[in-house]
Amino acid sequence: MWCMYMSDVAFESLTPAEWFRRNKEIAGFSSPSRAMYQTVRELIENALDATENHGILPSIKASIRYVDKDKDLYSIYVEDNGIGIPEEEIPNVFGQIFYSSKYKIKQHRGIFGLGAKMVVLYAQSTSGMPVRVTSSMKGSQYIYTYEISIDTVKNKPVIHSHVRVENKYGWHGTAVKVVLEGNWQYAKSRIEEYFTRTAMITPYAEIILIEPNNEVLRFNRITTIMPKPPVEGLPHPSSIDLESLKQLISRNSDIPLIDFLKENFDGIGDETVREFMKTVGIRASKHVKRLSESELRLLAEKMRQFNGWRRPRADWLSPIGEKILANGILHVLKPEAVFVTTRKPSSYSGHPFIVEAAIAWGGSIMPVDKPILYRYANKVPLLQDEGSDVIRHVIDEVDWSQYKVKFPAPLAVVVHVCSTKIPYASAGKEAIADVPEIEKEVRLAVREVARKLKVYLARKEKEQELLTKYAILRLYTDEVS
Amino acid sequence: MWCMYMSDVAFESLTPAEWFRRNKEIAGFSSPSRAMYQTVRELIENALDATENHGILPSIKASIRYVDKDKDLYSIYVEDNGIGIPEEEIPNVFGQIFYSSKYKIKQHRGIFGLGAKMVVLYAQSTSGMPVRVTSSMKGSQYIYTYEISIDTVKNKPVIHSHVRVENKYGWHGTAVKVVLEGNWQYAKSRIEEYFTRTAMITPYAEIILIEPNNEVLRFNRITTIMPKPPVEGLPHPSSIDLESLKQLISRNSDIPLIDFLKENFDGIGDETVREFMKTVGIRASKHVKRLSESELRLLAEKMRQFNGWRRPRADWLSPIGEKILANGILHVLKPEAVFVTTRKPSSYSGHPFIVEAAIAWGGSIMPVDKPILYRYANKVPLLQDEGSDVIRHVIDEVDWSQYKVKFPAPLAVVVHVCSTKIPYASAGKEAIADVPEIEKEVRLAVREVARKLKVYLARKEKEQELLTKYAILRLYTDEVS
Ligand SMILES: Nc1ncnc2c1ncn2[C@@H]1O[C@H](COP(=O)(O)OP(=O)(O)O)[C@@H](O)[C@H]1O
Ligand SMILES: Nc1ncnc2c1ncn2[C@@H]1O[C@H](COP(=O)(O)OP(=O)(O)O)[C@@H](O)[C@H]1O
Ligand SMILES: [Mg+2]
Ligand SMILES: [Mg+2]
Ligand SMILES: [Mg+2]
Repeated sequence: MWCMYMSDVAFESLTPAEWFRRNKEIAGFSSPSRAMYQTVRELIENALDATENHGILPSIKASIRYVDKDKDLYSIYVEDNGIGIPEEEIPNVFGQIFYSSKYKIKQHRGIFGLGAKMVVLYAQSTSGMPVRVTSSMKGSQYIYTYEISIDTVKNKPVIHSHVRVENKYGWHGTAVKVVLEGNWQYAKSRIEEYFTRTAMITPYAEIILIEPNNEVLRFNRITTIMPKPPVEGLPHPSSIDLESLKQLISRNSDIPLIDFLKENFDGIGDETVREFMKTVGIRASKHVKRLSESELRLLAEKMRQFNGWRRPRADWLSPIGEKILANGILHVLKPEAVFVTTRKPSSYSGHPFIVEAAIAWGGSIMPVDKPILYRYANKVPLLQDEGSDVIRHVIDEVDWSQYKVKFPAPLAVVVHVCSTKIPYASAGKEAIADVPEIEKEVRLAVREVARKLKVYLARKEKEQELLTKYAILRLYTDEVS
Repeated sequence: MWCMYMSDVAFESLTPAEWFRRNKEIAGFSSPSRAMYQTVRELIENALDATENHGILPSIKASIRYVDKDKDLYSIYVEDNGIGIPEEEIPNVFGQIFYSSKYKIKQHRGIFGLGAKMVVLYAQSTSGMPVRVTSSMKGSQYIYTYEISIDTVKNKPVIHSHVRVENKYGWHGTAVKVVLEGNWQYAKSRIEEYFTRTAMITPYAEIILIEPNNEVLRFNRITTIMPKPPVEGLPHPSSIDLESLKQLISRNSDIPLIDFLKENFDGIGDETVREFMKTVGIRASKHVKRLSESELRLLAEKMRQFNGWRRPRADWLSPIGEKILANGILHVLKPEAVFVTTRKPSSYSGHPFIVEAAIAWGGSIMPVDKPILYRYANKVPLLQDEGSDVIRHVIDEVDWSQYKVKFPAPLAVVVHVCSTKIPYASAGKEAIADVPEIEKEVRLAVREVARKLKVYLARKEKEQELLTKYAILRLYTDEVS
């Protein structure tokens, strides 16, 4: 018998930095090869956010080099021509978990305030070396460089060095260098695939990767047309949750409910709000801070149920657009034909989203037994955990024979979900969770392009038939003549 | 042209509570049905940890009830007969993220200090109601009840009420009740499966679930033999990381390196440490706080590389054991035969782990096209994200024909990984990450039981042959006679 009972129960509190240091695999840093891939991804995504989202055509230079081949130590370097980071913010941005400029209603690649810090944590846990960050903002007089690690017990940056040089040529952008334990042999193909898939969806970017053996992977800019950058938005009322509603109220002054609704939400005009207030049974003039707990609950519930809201605006999203997407796919996959759709905006839990889908057929695409799937979320290629992804689930259900496709067939499907908040199924950000509203839009988008493919294949079939008929006819006429 | 540049870049810091409130899907709370399942899981796991890990035979009562059927509001209640929670700790334990009694080197179901808080966050975001926690410890004079929610902006508990009643009958344990938005129709089968699989691996527990329609799912205790509870352990040196080493040193007083190693690590005796010190080239008497950065890096590296450490001790693990596991499987799956193995301890990144595997064959198991897989981590059944799990990857590689299995076959495979730290691939804790050391042990364990199955099937074949021969012989002799 073990009568241990309370013997050794002691309670402890951890900072998020210490927690993530102990649970690195949750953010995708589970092995040297995976950590190497995840590092590249986090740095490239920050670089793309810092350029494209601010109207700058991205030019990104990355390199991976051996530091100590025997110990599997590598340096990873990523440089961009983006907006830069304010000098005084660099320590927090790289040294404090959950510190970000992207906690906003707006489409971003990063949404977690975690990526850069995980890179630093992983580097210091394996090589012991701090990250080196060099940056300058448009118009800055100086280029500044920091070396930073994280004090995980305090969740605060440790600054190892800080120097400035004059910014003679008006450079702006950010360059990050880390040294970490990796495994190039295992990570190589995944990292190359990541670059290729990124290039496919950002044909307006110039991206270069120099590999440890000095091989160069280069993607040229093939268009200077960029998607319109997103603007900062408001939450949509259609499925706000109670807790968010309370937070919004506490951040507002004590104004009448009707004004609060019009000012704080997207899609609420004068007329809509009057219609809505009829369904609630709370006085429109009641001041928000005087709403009781049960009134708040009622309000949140009715906001979710009401059918009269305007569709959420797409202004805070930045879909790729049919033309740029078709361009990128034609350039990278070299198919015979491509069919593209950008759906209208929809929303889930107050977050607008747009689904884009494309089907590429024939040409350089090899015939396969089931469609090759390219998944993207906010322009980021998703390479792993495909089995947990809602897009895969939808694609698996499609009956391709309905669309005149007989496998093996030279078929690739591209699906891009963009949103102010992608519901990732894991912090590693490799799979989109099964959210019913998103599932539905993905299904509609895929069907739409599949129907276009069907028309195309039907026409080809017809032409083929005609050709055959014509050939037979010729054969016949040749014979009788 | 969009010359937006720095226009709207503002930096913000979030508490972990606010971060997880906004990113609930990362902890498995991605939809009402999934949240319902995850809630049950977190509460049951806490209940099992509070009983079995302290030498108490678990008796767990759970119920799920409609609170408001139209609004999909349910109450979920879980009661255990465990060690209870100290009165003054209840607010922190349910109201502060990353607060736990399980941040120790010891096998636990929980390892994150997150589960109970996610339940509270999800409840308050959907129903707006606080959690109700009632508890009492062995020998407590009172039974105390709190109602608690979380102030996410501060990551601190909000106490709504706190009452005490006399503990007349010496009750000890914990009862938790939450009200939340769910979807029983979708969650039912998954929750039932979770209970069934839990019962299979804990045949010494008594578990009851009352469902919303008053159906009762009941698992009786079929043995009073329990696995030995784990004791608290020390890290193993074989793959400690640099950052952990530094933290250990900073928590110690400034003693000679050789003493530091002997006192703080598992598997380091007098002789081993002398052998080890020869490989390092640092003076054994050097005081730890005087080690330079490069010496620390060297030390961590050599500790990982050294081959002479003793195997990590299994005392801080609590495998199920071959007998109990076979018992549970026979009881729940009712097969014709079952083959079980508990492997010797191994380790990865300083964490010991043990793999157990079982194969059940025939009887009530229906023939299937590929083996039915039951995955467990620290006695917790894993039901989702199977595609990302290292166990699935290993099973997919097995060539079953080598073991005389021809599909369809009545074959179920059970794999249990227990460790002081399970490397989950997601915070939802549904898949074990691809860690090479674990992959290897899982492979060896599965092969071991597969070989036992092969012997069994070969014997059956032989018997069958003999029977057939005998039958033919009889036919023959019958004929000639
Ligand atoms: N290359 C970069 N250029 C400009 N800003 C950057 C860059 N990298 C990181 N940042 C800033 O650091 C912040 C934190 O980055 P990170 O930890 O990756 O989280 P997230 O990208 O999710 O916000 C970003 O929000 C951004 O403000
Ligand atoms: N039923 C219970 N009985 C005893 N202690 C409990 C129970 N539920 C929760 N606790 C305590 O609350 C702490 C926090 O629980 P939780 O948030 O689920 O994180 P974790 O289980 O990972 O530690 C546990 O470490 C434990 O000390
Ligand atoms: Mg980022
Ligand atoms: Mg727990
Ligand atoms: Mg937990």
